[in-house]
Order: sequence, then structure tokens, then C-alpha cells
Amino acid sequence: MSYTVHINVMPLKELLDPQGKAVVGGLTNLGLGAVEDVRIGKHITLQVNAASADEARNVADEAAKKLLSNAVMEYYEISVD
Amino acid sequence: MSYTVHINVMPLKELLDPQGKAVVGGLTNLGLGAVEDVRIGKHITLQVNAASADEARNVADEAAKKLLSNAVMEYYEISVD
Repeated sequence: MSYTVHINVMPLKELLDPQGKAVVGGLTNLGLGAVEDVRIGKHITLQVNAASADEARNVADEAAKKLLSNAVMEYYEISVD
Repeated sequence: MSYTVHINVMPLKELLDPQGKAVVGGLTNLGLGAVEDVRIGKHITLQVNAASADEARNVADEAAKKLLSNAVMEYYEISVD
């Protein structure tokens, strides 16, 4: 069976996110000063062929660890549909 | 009050995602052939100062339309915590 797995890879909370800071500036210039902080990461959707949702999650976890995220600068969250 | 709003900006389903295709190849080489398809977009977290969750969602919607997504190539989804 094919499962859809979502992975969010985000910059660690302890680190500055210069791209996010630039977006806050851009939004303020557009009149959207209500936005106080922005952090930008990746959203990755996987179609995983697996026998169960747990197996699909394990595959996604391995993919995130080995290829999709850099543990020095990023953390990730996984959810299975 | 400050609301956390999440925006996912993804490539339109009709379009090829070459970055995702490259990741499928990389995962196959790592022994993760169970991953059949990958699509990669952005995950953006906003802290919005607003009177209500609805107002925060409207601010995020305007931000997504005006700055964060390109309607020609991408669609976006918004959720408010």
C-alpha cells in the first residue's frame, strides 16, 4: 500500500534564520507589520510503498536522517496521512 | 495575541518537480527504494500579532499571495495553531 508521509525540515530554534528575517522586512514593507517573526524550512511529501503506516514512518525517518536534513542546523518532524 | 501560522508552499501537482525526482534517485541509491515519489516545497512558520485566529489567517493569506508563493508554479495551504 502507498502512504503519503509529510516531513518538515526547519532551522534549529537556537539558530538565526536570515531568510526568515528578510521575509519579515519584506512583509513590513508590504504593510503586513503584524507578522513578527518568520522561519523558513522545507516541506517534503513522500509516497512510500509500505505494509503499514509505522513502516512508512520508519522509511521516512531514515530518509530524513540520511539525506533530507542536516542535524547540525536543522530538525525535522514527520507525519503520516 | 500572537498566533503561530504554518504555510506550506508546494509545486503545482501538474508540474514536474526535478528536485523531488533527484531525491527519489538519491534515496534509491541509499537502499530506500520504497519511496516512489517525492515533492519538495517550503514550510513557513509565521508569528502573527492579531486579535483572532481568523485575522491571523487573513494576514498569512495576504503574505502568501503577495510575497511567499508564485501562483504560476505553486499552491499554498495555511493552518493556524
